[in-house]
Amino acid sequence: MELTLSDGLVRAGQRARERFYDASGYGRVENGGDLALAPVEAAHLLYRGDIDSVDGMDVRSLLASAAVSEVAFFVYKDLRDRGFYLTPAREGWVDDPEGIDFVVYPRGKGPWDDAVEYRVRVVGERDTVPATDLGDCVLAVVDEESEITYLETDSQDVGGTSAAAVPAVAGDLLAERVLCWEPPSALYERAFYGQRLDDDGAVQLSLVEAAYLAHEGTLSVDGGADAVVERGREVEGERFDRRLTVYSTLRDAGVVPKTGFKFGADFRTYADVDSVDDLGHSELLVRVLPADHRFEPRDLALDVRLAHGVRKRMVFALVGDEVEWLSVARLTP
Amino acid sequence: MELTLSDGLVRAGQRARERFYDASGYGRVENGGDLALAPVEAAHLLYRGDIDSVDGMDVRSLLASAAVSEVAFFVYKDLRDRGFYLTPAREGWVDDPEGIDFVVYPRGKGPWDDAVEYRVRVVGERDTVPATDLGDCVLAVVDEESEITYLETDSQDVGGTSAAAVPAVAGDLLAERVLCWEPPSALYERAFYGQRLDDDGAVQLSLVEAAYLAHEGTLSVDGGADAVVERGREVEGERFDRRLTVYSTLRDAGVVPKTGFKFGADFRTYADVDSVDDLGHSELLVRVLPADHRFEPRDLALDVRLAHGVRKRMVFALVGDEVEWLSVARLTP
Repeated sequence: MELTLSDGLVRAGQRARERFYDASGYGRVENGGDLALAPVEAAHLLYRGDIDSVDGMDVRSLLASAAVSEVAFFVYKDLRDRGFYLTPAREGWVDDPEGIDFVVYPRGKGPWDDAVEYRVRVVGERDTVPATDLGDCVLAVVDEESEITYLETDSQDVGGTSAAAVPAVAGDLLAERVLCWEPPSALYERAFYGQRLDDDGAVQLSLVEAAYLAHEGTLSVDGGADAVVERGREVEGERFDRRLTVYSTLRDAGVVPKTGFKFGADFRTYADVDSVDDLGHSELLVRVLPADHRFEPRDLALDVRLAHGVRKRMVFALVGDEVEWLSVARLTP
Repeated sequence: MELTLSDGLVRAGQRARERFYDASGYGRVENGGDLALAPVEAAHLLYRGDIDSVDGMDVRSLLASAAVSEVAFFVYKDLRDRGFYLTPAREGWVDDPEGIDFVVYPRGKGPWDDAVEYRVRVVGERDTVPATDLGDCVLAVVDEESEITYLETDSQDVGGTSAAAVPAVAGDLLAERVLCWEPPSALYERAFYGQRLDDDGAVQLSLVEAAYLAHEGTLSVDGGADAVVERGREVEGERFDRRLTVYSTLRDAGVVPKTGFKFGADFRTYADVDSVDDLGHSELLVRVLPADHRFEPRDLALDVRLAHGVRKRMVFALVGDEVEWLSVARLTP
């Protein structure tokens, strides 16, 4: 079968429609009952040998042309190989095509059904992705060796039951932390603020912990909360304000954030702290980013892989006027 | 015991020398048999209650002063708690004090012995560290909650026995890869270049693989190696040249580099590839960096943690006039 490309679509008659759309979910039915195929679909049919040429091109020529993106083709093929039917996200072909490349149906379903399994956005590993585009799609990242990593992105609810009260405490502001020499035991033991210098006695607070406690009126320190925040900005720049916003939002939601340094993150979090003697596993790794951040897929892969390895969920706190919580996890379609 | 601080040292007489140096390895013996203590040592003795004041200051005042860095104190204390004697790296006190903060002796040994266990450099998590300073020291990173992560840095030998010959092959340069439609089987199966599109048939090469093979004269592609390198620079900037240098150095040393994307790295490497059917575990994760790179400790922690979790060694390829190989791994002193 030899087909032609015009206006960015490959069109064919009713026999092709029966064979490719009705039987296998390729393309879309046009008004007269004819078939329209997106170029990536035509490339797949060419690759399979189901059609012979498109505008005289074989699959090799079509992939070398500008009509089909190689990364889109690899993802299309991979999802077909995994047993899915899928439709290119073109205006009028699928609902809400904005920001995605394919709509994937549940196995056994197709474009004639109502159900959607995944909304997939395709990127090469060198393409950056705006954080604002994520949260409602699966990112299919094609790496330089053409292997595909699927990352599911969702919005994340954040909340917990940690709410221990802390009596007043005094501290010394050192270079990058606050040292409380005679803290009430609840500070560390119940509310899990700071870190002990020894098995009892002095507790060291990070600058975000100290700024939060000083704002709350719990911690007294020379210069008050302002001095702590100013020090934070000196040593961390505007990132400190973003981290303090996220820290405060988490604490106010009943979640205890502790440093995520060992995991390369800003925070790890505990949703239900009653006592440090009875601490569960921390659930989330949180990386704090400005709302207009653009992800490098490689950085995403690194964070998600690490979080998976330590049985935590990777969450990005996107700080704009409010904090939005974006979770990203590996997916095997 | 009340001591005084002058010229950046705390000095005391022979009784103090017997008690602190002879018995516990603090400080250094001065000409007359008296004792000189670095401020961080004096702070530790104050913290332990072994002395009462330094220039009228208690430990709280001394730590709040500029005389002692809090991060140095935390690391000093931690190593003492772990049973080590150690000496501040001052000119005339230890060999090669440049670039480090402490010389740590093997357990049971002290400054009166010849052996050195670790040369330790102390940094806060917000300090950056020049790559050129690493390779012969242990980095003690104090995070914002004052927990300490020890990272051992070493130079790394790189070499292997992978040396399969590959017959000539032709490919199409697509946007970010080269597609070889009819490759010799040795290309993938023996030499482990590229990735198959299906169980047999076409092989996709990454741009670094293609550039290397074109330089070698093995791959023919429109425009030759220059076209591939030019494309690499278009999509990756000067990072492409660094990565190609490292890729070529590894291949020439008998090591097969494959993408490290899933681990957030540039490459994972296989030292002894004879056939892809008999592939071992990849040994190294390689991140390519310019020789003048400054590490953020948090990024280091992330890379090292991930590599450890997947049982590989984290290696940084520092590209200047030559490639230097720096391995970094977690250490429990």
